[in-house]
Amino acid sequence: MSNFWTSLRGKHAADRERGSEGMENPGYCSGSFDGLHHPSDDDDDEMVDIAGATLDFSSTDDVPPLSSGVYEEHNGTSRTAGMNGSGPSRLVDPLEDPLPGVGTYEDFNTIDWVREKSKDRDRHREITNKSRQSTVALLHSISDAFSGWLLMLLVGLMSGALAGGIDISAHWMTDVKGGLCLRGFWFNHEHCCWLSNETTFQERDRCPQWQSWAELITGKSEGPFAYIVNYLMYIFWALMFSFLAVILVRAFAPYACGSGIPEIKTILSGFIIRGYLGKWTLIIKTITLVLAVSSGLSLGKEGPLVHVACCCANILCHLFTKYRKNEAKRREVLSAAAAVGVSVAFGAPIGGVLFSLEEVSYYFPLKTLWRSFFAALVAAFTLRSINPFGNSRLVLFYVEFHTPWHLVELAPFILLGIFGGLWGALFIKANIAWCRLRKTTCLGHYPVIEVLVVAALTALLSYPNSYTRMSGSELISELFNDCSLLDSSQLCGYKQPANTSDTGVDNSLADRPAGPGLYTALWQLALALVFKMMITVITFGMKVPSGLFIPSMAVGAIAGRLLGVGMEQLAYYNHDAVIFKGWCSQGADCITPGLYAMVGAAACLGGVTRMTVSLVVIMFELTGGLEYIVPLMAATMTSKWVADAFGREGIYEAHIRLNGYPFLEPKEEFEHSSLAVDVMRPRRMDPTLAVLTQEGMTVGEVESLVESTHFSGFPVVVSSESQRLVGFVLRRDLLISIDNARKRQDGIVSASQVVFTEHTPPLPPDAPPPLRLRCIMDLSPFTVTDHTPMDITVDIFRKLGLRQCLVTHNGRLLGIITKKDILKHMAQMANRDPDSILFN
Amino acid sequence: MSNFWTSLRGKHAADRERGSEGMENPGYCSGSFDGLHHPSDDDDDEMVDIAGATLDFSSTDDVPPLSSGVYEEHNGTSRTAGMNGSGPSRLVDPLEDPLPGVGTYEDFNTIDWVREKSKDRDRHREITNKSRQSTVALLHSISDAFSGWLLMLLVGLMSGALAGGIDISAHWMTDVKGGLCLRGFWFNHEHCCWLSNETTFQERDRCPQWQSWAELITGKSEGPFAYIVNYLMYIFWALMFSFLAVILVRAFAPYACGSGIPEIKTILSGFIIRGYLGKWTLIIKTITLVLAVSSGLSLGKEGPLVHVACCCANILCHLFTKYRKNEAKRREVLSAAAAVGVSVAFGAPIGGVLFSLEEVSYYFPLKTLWRSFFAALVAAFTLRSINPFGNSRLVLFYVEFHTPWHLVELAPFILLGIFGGLWGALFIKANIAWCRLRKTTCLGHYPVIEVLVVAALTALLSYPNSYTRMSGSELISELFNDCSLLDSSQLCGYKQPANTSDTGVDNSLADRPAGPGLYTALWQLALALVFKMMITVITFGMKVPSGLFIPSMAVGAIAGRLLGVGMEQLAYYNHDAVIFKGWCSQGADCITPGLYAMVGAAACLGGVTRMTVSLVVIMFELTGGLEYIVPLMAATMTSKWVADAFGREGIYEAHIRLNGYPFLEPKEEFEHSSLAVDVMRPRRMDPTLAVLTQEGMTVGEVESLVESTHFSGFPVVVSSESQRLVGFVLRRDLLISIDNARKRQDGIVSASQVVFTEHTPPLPPDAPPPLRLRCIMDLSPFTVTDHTPMDITVDIFRKLGLRQCLVTHNGRLLGIITKKDILKHMAQMANRDPDSILFN
Repeated sequence: MSNFWTSLRGKHAADRERGSEGMENPGYCSGSFDGLHHPSDDDDDEMVDIAGATLDFSSTDDVPPLSSGVYEEHNGTSRTAGMNGSGPSRLVDPLEDPLPGVGTYEDFNTIDWVREKSKDRDRHREITNKSRQSTVALLHSISDAFSGWLLMLLVGLMSGALAGGIDISAHWMTDVKGGLCLRGFWFNHEHCCWLSNETTFQERDRCPQWQSWAELITGKSEGPFAYIVNYLMYIFWALMFSFLAVILVRAFAPYACGSGIPEIKTILSGFIIRGYLGKWTLIIKTITLVLAVSSGLSLGKEGPLVHVACCCANILCHLFTKYRKNEAKRREVLSAAAAVGVSVAFGAPIGGVLFSLEEVSYYFPLKTLWRSFFAALVAAFTLRSINPFGNSRLVLFYVEFHTPWHLVELAPFILLGIFGGLWGALFIKANIAWCRLRKTTCLGHYPVIEVLVVAALTALLSYPNSYTRMSGSELISELFNDCSLLDSSQLCGYKQPANTSDTGVDNSLADRPAGPGLYTALWQLALALVFKMMITVITFGMKVPSGLFIPSMAVGAIAGRLLGVGMEQLAYYNHDAVIFKGWCSQGADCITPGLYAMVGAAACLGGVTRMTVSLVVIMFELTGGLEYIVPLMAATMTSKWVADAFGREGIYEAHIRLNGYPFLEPKEEFEHSSLAVDVMRPRRMDPTLAVLTQEGMTVGEVESLVESTHFSGFPVVVSSESQRLVGFVLRRDLLISIDNARKRQDGIVSASQVVFTEHTPPLPPDAPPPLRLRCIMDLSPFTVTDHTPMDITVDIFRKLGLRQCLVTHNGRLLGIITKKDILKHMAQMANRDPDSILFN
Repeated sequence: MSNFWTSLRGKHAADRERGSEGMENPGYCSGSFDGLHHPSDDDDDEMVDIAGATLDFSSTDDVPPLSSGVYEEHNGTSRTAGMNGSGPSRLVDPLEDPLPGVGTYEDFNTIDWVREKSKDRDRHREITNKSRQSTVALLHSISDAFSGWLLMLLVGLMSGALAGGIDISAHWMTDVKGGLCLRGFWFNHEHCCWLSNETTFQERDRCPQWQSWAELITGKSEGPFAYIVNYLMYIFWALMFSFLAVILVRAFAPYACGSGIPEIKTILSGFIIRGYLGKWTLIIKTITLVLAVSSGLSLGKEGPLVHVACCCANILCHLFTKYRKNEAKRREVLSAAAAVGVSVAFGAPIGGVLFSLEEVSYYFPLKTLWRSFFAALVAAFTLRSINPFGNSRLVLFYVEFHTPWHLVELAPFILLGIFGGLWGALFIKANIAWCRLRKTTCLGHYPVIEVLVVAALTALLSYPNSYTRMSGSELISELFNDCSLLDSSQLCGYKQPANTSDTGVDNSLADRPAGPGLYTALWQLALALVFKMMITVITFGMKVPSGLFIPSMAVGAIAGRLLGVGMEQLAYYNHDAVIFKGWCSQGADCITPGLYAMVGAAACLGGVTRMTVSLVVIMFELTGGLEYIVPLMAATMTSKWVADAFGREGIYEAHIRLNGYPFLEPKEEFEHSSLAVDVMRPRRMDPTLAVLTQEGMTVGEVESLVESTHFSGFPVVVSSESQRLVGFVLRRDLLISIDNARKRQDGIVSASQVVFTEHTPPLPPDAPPPLRLRCIMDLSPFTVTDHTPMDITVDIFRKLGLRQCLVTHNGRLLGIITKKDILKHMAQMANRDPDSILFN
C-alpha cells in the first residue's frame, strides 16, 4: 500500500517536473524558487481534477482511492454506455466519480469538451430525476440551478474589491515616488491636498502637506540640487518596486508574470495549465501588479486584471461541486470572469462582455452571456462603492466633449487608424522578435537583471519629461480631456484670442492660436511618443505582470492629440479654405483635440489587439454618447485592416504561437485544400496505427503496447483484420484501470484477456478470469472519412472542441487526427516550423 | 426539348402548390390571390438557388441547363472528392456551377450548412489562387473581399431610408385619424403646429391650422356632436386603414403578415421559405406596416422592421455572386440585417447587434458581429439624417432622469419583474391558444372580417380614453418621461406643495401630493392597462404586419408608472417610515415614476420575448447612463425566471412550434438520456434502410428504389452484405443526374450499371456503358455510433448545422437520423404530438 503511495507521489512529482520543464521550454518564466510554494497538499486551487483526488487521499489515508471498491461494483454491472455514454441502463450514479483518476486530465493537455459537457448533462439529469423524489433533493436541485448565479455574484464582488484595492495602492505608491504626505503617509497626493484648506482651485495639486523627497531630505523644494535629489529618489523607488515585483514573481508564482491573456485564451480553449489560476498566482499577481505599475514601467494593469479575475473565479469554483469537477463548466465561469476583468479595468461592463466574446472566449453560449453581464455589473458596482478614484465615477477615463464632429474630420480619423494599424503590426513584429531573442539567447537567463535595467532606463528617461513621468492612465486622461479656460495644463496653453471683440464671439471653447506653453507641450509629447514606442516593445514580456492596453492607448492618444492640435491650428489659420468653409467659421470651436486623442488610442489598441466592436463599445461607455461611435469605428476598422495586411495575428495570438500552445484560432478560416488523409497519422511511411482489439489481447500485450508508444489514446477495433471501429480508450484511463485491477481484482495476471465486448467471449477452461474494460471505453468516438476536406475537419474540431478524431475509409479504421496534428499541419502550410507546437 | 421545359414548369408549379399547401397547413396566411404576383420569371428575389437556375433558363432559352454540356466534362474527369470535397486533384472550377440544380434545395427544406460553407471556402480558395496570376483577378479578389462590407453599407442605407419613410408616413397617417392640416394635408399634427406662429409652448399641440374632422365637417370644435363626428371619423379611418392593410397582404404578399421574427429565426437556422424575403414581401410589408400602425391596432412596427431589413438584405444579396449563390453566406448577411432592423426601430445599434446575437441568429461568427455592428451604425445614422421625429435624435424614446435610484427601490423593481414574467407567460399561453383556435376552427377562414372586427373594437374602445387613443410609442414616450413643472400632461397633475416655505426647499422636481388630474390619469391608465392586455392577445397573429415590442412595452410602462406614482405618494406621505428614512426626506425628489415605467416596460418585453442582455442594452442606449442598468437588469432577470417557470419558450419559439417549423432551439439543452439508436430510422419494426451499393445496381433499380421511397437522400455502401459506408447521395441530385444522363449521354439505359467507385469495375463485354455518379456523392457523410448519447448528437446537429447524420455500429451502417427525427423525438419526450413537426 505504501508502495502505491510512493509511486503515486513520485508520479505527481514527475508531473510537476514535466510541467516546469514544459514551461521552461517555451521560454516561460520559471526559476529556481519554483518548488517553494508547492507543499504537496496545496493543489486544491489548481486547474485539474487531480486536485479532487489529492483531497481524497488526505481524507482517507488508509484506503487509497484506486482501491475504494468502486471498481468491483462497476465490473459487476454491464454498462452499455461508455465514459460519456448515458444509456438508460446505466446503474452508476453519475454524481459520484466512477473511479478516481479516470476521466481526468494531465497537466499541459487538452480537455475533451464533448465528454465534459456530456458529464455535466448526466449530472444535471440525475439531479433533476432525484428532485422528484424528495424535498431535500428538490432543494438541492434548486440550489444547484442557482449556484451559477451565486458564483457569478461572488466573482463580481471579489474581483471588484481586489480591483479597488489595486487601484488605491497603485495610486498611492505611484505618488510615493515623488514625495510623502505629512498628514499621514498613507494619503496619496490628491487625497492629501484635498484635505488641505490652503489649496486653491487653480493650484489644486500643490499644498504644503505634500512634500517632495527633496523637501523632506534637504528642506529645499526648488533648485538644481532638489531636482537631482527628487530624480534620484524617483529612480530609487522605481528600482525598488520593480525589484520586489520580479523577485516575488520568481520566488512564489512564476505564472504571475506577463499579461496572462494569451494563456487564458488557451485555457479557455480547453488547455490545462495547473496552477496558472491558483491562489498563489492570485496573491502574487495582485501584489506585484501594484508594484509593477507603481514602478513607472511602461505597462498597464488591464490585462493582468483579467488574469486576477480569472484566478478569483477559478478559486471560487471550488465552492461548488458542479464547477469544481467539470472542466467545461469551469471554463464558462472563466469566460465570464474575463468580462469581469475588463469591466473593472475600464468601468465598462458591456464592453467587458463583448471583449470576452470577441477576444478571449472560445465557447460562449448564451447562458454565459447573461451571467457574464451580471458578473460584470456586480463587479463594476462593487468597484464604484469602493470609489478608488475618489470621484464616484465608474469609468477610468471620464470624457465629455462639447462639440460634434464633422464629416471632413473622418480623413484625419482614418489617418489615425492607419497609424494605429502600422504601429500595431510593427509592435507585434518587434515584440515577438525581442521575446524570441530572450528565449534563444542567454538574455533569458537573467530576468531580474533585465527588469532592473529596463526599470532604471525607464525611470532615467521618463523623469525629465512631465508626460512620461506621470502614470500612463493619468497621461491618457489628460490627453483625452477637452481644454476649457479653467484648465491649467500646459496642453491648454493657447493664446487668448486678440480678436474676441472683432468677431463678437466670446466662446471660451473656441479654437485659439497655440501659445508657447502648448508648443513646449507638443515637443514633450513628441519625445514621449518616441520613448513610449521604444520602451513598450522591450517591457511587454518581462517577468513582471504587464498589460498592454494602457501603453498602446498612450501611444495612440499622444499621436492623436498631436494630430488634433495640428488640425485645430490648421483650421484656425485657414478657416476660409475649402475644406473648412461652411462648418468651421472663425472663432468657433470646431476641432476637439481630445476626441482625436481618443480615436488615436482606440486605433492603436485596435492595431495591437485587433479588437473592434468591444473596443468601440468600451470607448462608447467612457463617453456615453452615440455621437462618437462613427469616428471610433472608422479608426478601429481601418486600423484592423491595415494591421491585418501585415499579418493576421494580434499580439495575444502571436504570443500563443510563440509559446507553442495548442490553440485553434476560431477567427481564422482554414485556407488550404488538404484532405483528412493528408493530415492523419500514421503517415504513408510510418508503422501502422496502434490499435487494441475488442477481444483476444492479454493484459501483458496491452501493457507492452501502451509502454512502447507515447500516444494518449488507442482505438479499439473488432479484429485486426476487419479494422472495424468499436471505440476509443484513453491511455491514462487504461493505465489506471489495469493498475487498479492488478491490485484489487483476484486472478488478473499478464495472461488475462482484456475484453471490451459487452458479453465475455467463451474462454478456454484453464484461462485466468478476463479483465472487462468496456466501461472505460468511449463508445462514441468521432470519426470522419479520409476524403473529408480539412476545412470541415477543422470546423468540427473547433465547434465541438475535440481532442482527437478517427479517420475511416469505407467503414475501416485508417488513422487518427489530433489537435496537435492539425496545428502542425497548419504551421507547415504557413511555412512555419511544425515543431513549434509543443503540447497536445 | 420543349417537353423538358413543360415538365420543369410543371414541377415548378407543383413545388409552389406544395409550398402554399405547406403554409396553409400550419394555419399560415395564404389565400386565393396567391398566384397573382408570381409571374414565372419573378423568382430572382427569392430565397433559393433555384432562382439562379431560373435566370439561366431565361438567358439561354434554347439550351436548357441540364444539357449545357458541363456534365460530360465531369464524367470524363476522375474527381476524388465529392460535392463538398475539395481534393487537390479537382479539375472543375468551383466558381461555376457543376450541374445546374445539383446542390440546390427545394422549398421548405433545410440547407446543409457544412456543404454550403465548404462551397464558399472552395470559391474563396479559387479566387485567392487566381489572384496570383493576373491583376484583373487580383482586383476581383479584392472586390470580393470587400463586397461583404459594401453589401452591409447598402443594407444599412436602404433599411435606414425605409425605416425613416415608414416613421414619417405612420406619424402622418396616425394624425390623419384626428384631423387635417390646413396649411397642407401632408403635414402631420406636430409639424403643422411647429410652423404656426400662434403656438405657445404650453399649448404646443393646439394651433388653428390643425383642424379636427368635426371642425372640417361641421365647423364646430367643441360639444357632444363634434365629439361624435370625431369618434366616427376615427373609427372610419381605423377600419379603412386596416381593411387596406389586410387586403393588400392577402392579395399580393401573404408572407407579409405577422411580425416575421419566428420565420426569420427559422430561416436563419437553415430553413428555406421561398419568397419570404422577396421583393413583393418587402413592398407590401412596408406599405401595410404603415397602414396597420396607423389604424390604431395594438401592434408595433419593431418586429416587422426586422423583417423589412431582412428583405432588403436578401434582395441586395442578388447583386453579389458570393451571396446570391450561397445559402450560408446569405444567412450571415440576414443575421446582420436583423441587427439593422432593431437598430432603426429603437435607434440602438449596439442593442440591435446583441438582439440579433441573443434572440434571432443561429450561426453568428465574429465576422458577422463586426459587419452587423457596421450595418447597424450605418442604418442608425441614415435614419438620423432623415430625422423622422424632427428632433435630430437617434432614439425612439429619449429619456433623461435627474435622480439616482435607491437600493430600497429594488423591491418594487423586482415586483415589476414578477408582473412582467407573469404577464409574459400568460400572454404567450393565451395568444397561442387563440392562434390554435384560429387554425383549427372556421375562424381562420375569414381573416379580413377578423381584422375589421378587431380594428373596429379597438377603435371603439380606445377613442374615449386619451391614453389608448394616442399611438403606442407616444404613450410609452409620455409614460417614460419625468415630470417637471413645465409639463402640461395630466400625468403631472400634482398639487403644488403647500409647505414649500416650511421646508425651505424649492425643488420643482420634488415629490408632491397627487392632484385630481393625476387621479383621473391613473384611472384612465388602469383601464388602458386592462384593455391593452386583452386586445394584444387577439391582435398578434392576425393577417396584418404586427410587432409585439410596442404593445408589450406599453403594458409594462403603464403598470410601472402606476406603481411608480403609488411609491411616490407612499414616500411623500410616509417619509418618516423606516424604509424611506435616510434617503427620502420631505420635499426631496426621491422617486422617479418614469424610471418605474421604463423598468416595467423592460420587464414585460422580457417576459414575452425572454430577451435579457439585449433588452437591457437597448434601454441603456435610450438613457445613455450606466446608472439605471441595475434596476433594468434586476427586473428583466426576475421576469425571465418567473416566465420560464411557466414554460421555457418565448413568444417567437412558441409560434415556431405552432407552425411546425424545423427549428432546433440552440438555447435549450437536450435533457433526456436517449441514445442515437433510439432515434434513428429505421425503427425496429420498420423495413431495413434503403441503401445504394457502390456498384452492381442498374439505373432502373436505382430509379425504382428512389420512386418507391420518399427519403431525401440515400447512403451508398460497399455491398449490401458488408454494409460498410462509402458516401451519401441526395435524392434531388440523383434524379437530376440520371435524368440528364439519360437525355445527353449515349447508351445510358435502364440496364446500365450505376457506379460510385473511383474506377469502373470490369463489366461483361455486352453490357451498356456504366453511369458514373461519384461526383454527386458526398464522400464525407457525418456518422455517429449507435451508442452516442442524443445530447451529443443534438449538439453536433446544432453546432455544425447538419441535415442528417448516419448511424453506424462497429463500422457497419445501421440507420439515419434527420433533423426532423430529432425534433419528433424531442416533441415525443415532451409529451407533445410528434406529427406537429411538418418540415424537414
